Amino acid sequence: MTDFSKTRALFHLPDGLVYLDGNSLGPLPKKAVDKTATMMREEWGEMLIRGWNAAGWMAQPRQVGDRVGRLIGAPEGSVVLGDTLSIKVYQALASALELRPQRKVVLSDNGNFPTDLYMASGLIQSLDKGHELKIVAPEEVEDAIDDTVAALMLTEVDYRTGRLHDMKRLTEKAHAAGALAIWDLAHSAGALPVDLAGADADFAVGCTYKYLNGGPGAPAFIYVAPRLAEKVRPALSGWLGHDAPFAFDLDYRAGRGIDRMRVGTPPVIALAALDAALDAWEGVDMADLRAASIRLSERFIVEVERRCPDLTLGSPRDPEQRGSQVSFLHDNGYAIMQALIAHDVIGDFRAPNAMRFGFTPLYLGEDEVVAGAERLERILVERLWDRPEFHERAAVT
Amino acid sequence: MTDFSKTRALFHLPDGLVYLDGNSLGPLPKKAVDKTATMMREEWGEMLIRGWNAAGWMAQPRQVGDRVGRLIGAPEGSVVLGDTLSIKVYQALASALELRPQRKVVLSDNGNFPTDLYMASGLIQSLDKGHELKIVAPEEVEDAIDDTVAALMLTEVDYRTGRLHDMKRLTEKAHAAGALAIWDLAHSAGALPVDLAGADADFAVGCTYKYLNGGPGAPAFIYVAPRLAEKVRPALSGWLGHDAPFAFDLDYRAGRGIDRMRVGTPPVIALAALDAALDAWEGVDMADLRAASIRLSERFIVEVERRCPDLTLGSPRDPEQRGSQVSFLHDNGYAIMQALIAHDVIGDFRAPNAMRFGFTPLYLGEDEVVAGAERLERILVERLWDRPEFHERAAVT
Repeated sequence: MTDFSKTRALFHLPDGLVYLDGNSLGPLPKKAVDKTATMMREEWGEMLIRGWNAAGWMAQPRQVGDRVGRLIGAPEGSVVLGDTLSIKVYQALASALELRPQRKVVLSDNGNFPTDLYMASGLIQSLDKGHELKIVAPEEVEDAIDDTVAALMLTEVDYRTGRLHDMKRLTEKAHAAGALAIWDLAHSAGALPVDLAGADADFAVGCTYKYLNGGPGAPAFIYVAPRLAEKVRPALSGWLGHDAPFAFDLDYRAGRGIDRMRVGTPPVIALAALDAALDAWEGVDMADLRAASIRLSERFIVEVERRCPDLTLGSPRDPEQRGSQVSFLHDNGYAIMQALIAHDVIGDFRAPNAMRFGFTPLYLGEDEVVAGAERLERILVERLWDRPEFHERAAVT
Repeated sequence: MTDFSKTRALFHLPDGLVYLDGNSLGPLPKKAVDKTATMMREEWGEMLIRGWNAAGWMAQPRQVGDRVGRLIGAPEGSVVLGDTLSIKVYQALASALELRPQRKVVLSDNGNFPTDLYMASGLIQSLDKGHELKIVAPEEVEDAIDDTVAALMLTEVDYRTGRLHDMKRLTEKAHAAGALAIWDLAHSAGALPVDLAGADADFAVGCTYKYLNGGPGAPAFIYVAPRLAEKVRPALSGWLGHDAPFAFDLDYRAGRGIDRMRVGTPPVIALAALDAALDAWEGVDMADLRAASIRLSERFIVEVERRCPDLTLGSPRDPEQRGSQVSFLHDNGYAIMQALIAHDVIGDFRAPNAMRFGFTPLYLGEDEVVAGAERLERILVERLWDRPEFHERAAVT
């Protein structure tokens, strides 16, 4: 059994704070500060340019990629870190569309995170070949898979509701229809067991600042199924995806395997912080994590529904149908969430009316979940949310 | 007059090391470690998700952009940080080509850094509209500008030779021919005075880990001339370039001005390190910097030519025609450079035969330049380079 009291000790959490937003930004792993400072001082400071070889900076996107890969069922050498999730979505989709030149439909759902849809639209407009971004409701995806679809592009866990797609089943369906499947694991990696190889996914992308605790703006990752890795043309053909970057040839020649999905110079400082954060996963059994996550979210739902009858559950009731987050809906959700945050319970808000709460067994216990529900109750009962300062929208919600 | 002894005191340089590679990776600014650690501990650690508003993380790409902008003659609000240089080149070129839909030529030179050419090739292949990447010799660029050219895409300072293009003149020529001009400032920003507004450049991109000392893999920047900023369609249309990212609309609507060139979540930790590094530029007069840079590079050339007759100058002899770096050519340049590095003089090597040396008055003095030339002499005279270990190619040169 995974000992979550041990993993919890690895994180810094401010005293008295109930943090139910690890689905948006994971907390600081205590060792990340020192490890990052040490990298800066001893590697950058002392080795300077030599760090690219001597400290292994150039190999880091692949090495950290393998660490992430182990959490998502990806074989060694099939995941690489770099850029942002948006860029990685673009790469995956651009490559997928070229593999299915006769087909014109990109199928997604309205629970996909907007940036995935925006990047797809931008790509489609650039290609100017008559592609269509078809957006259906999550429950309509399966029936919408047909032989016009070039790529099925979904976020496994809906960012608003936590609704979980059946990756294996939908990928099979896509393949049976001759389409490729691209999975965004932003709310999956580190949140629940993922088996990319077992599901036979074609591409996957994800970010590392949510459940993987890499810090604000930590680099993204991309997975390409090994059977496809050398067949894809990288649309973003940067020098570090070249077969021989330091030959400085004038012509691009795609690198081997997943290396061709590298683009520019790797973000070494950010990768040092992320690498430190990933230490927390050593020895964690993903089945234990999932069981603990469900225990926490079920308890939260029970407590909130009992205490706060004005709130409507915005997530699937069956925990097997959810990722590791739960939403409750209320027309004044924004103000309620601001009041809750002011009372040291942190979740977040997603327009138009969803209050989101994330459950992260690595550092969150049942007592805190109950405390969060209690404070939510008090804010509703005493209408503490109904003050001007809580209605004012901040830039970031 | 700028006091370079003061700026020098801001950097950590290992004892006894002569660092002539600030054109590849700037050294560690002493305060960067603490400032980054403080950001991680006090902002990420204590504020958690609230840091996006409370610590100003979301505004940082623009704020740091303005700091960089002041060094390159860009008006407030016209520069934004994020991604890598390769990605920024792609954005600039994709937008430029859409502004000139009837034209099919991207004109560049063989002194452009390969990733710029690779990204252009990748884009052209994706667009599949018959664009041509025309690569000429640097001295042939001016004559090759004609009314077939959609975009002139150049790196102002040649990464191999230090040869400096005349940005103002070539931009004028491009505009007269109806073309747009994209300038890569990788070897210019912080290396010499740049006046983007004065040159009427259309787009500019650059990296911040060379002369701006932001650390390995520090984020890139992009400039779009304010007169164009709201006319360009962002090809990489990520959510943070959206007019209202936190409305989570399904449709993309480009943000105002330079904001539309943002893509994904900003790299907050890396931006903290870069922001600390940029403090070194407060009070630096770029004309003083240029004069000091020329003094250093001229002295180096004199010393090396006097001491090392086997080496051939690979850079323009006229300092006004150079950026802030000098190359010397030798068939065994790779091994010689490795031996030099082993003797604590750090430059780098660019295939096929160029040893590069960068001159960075912020932290480099004339004594070190002379010491570097002396050690180079010794390595050549005593053939210290001719050992097996110095011939072995490392992954990164």
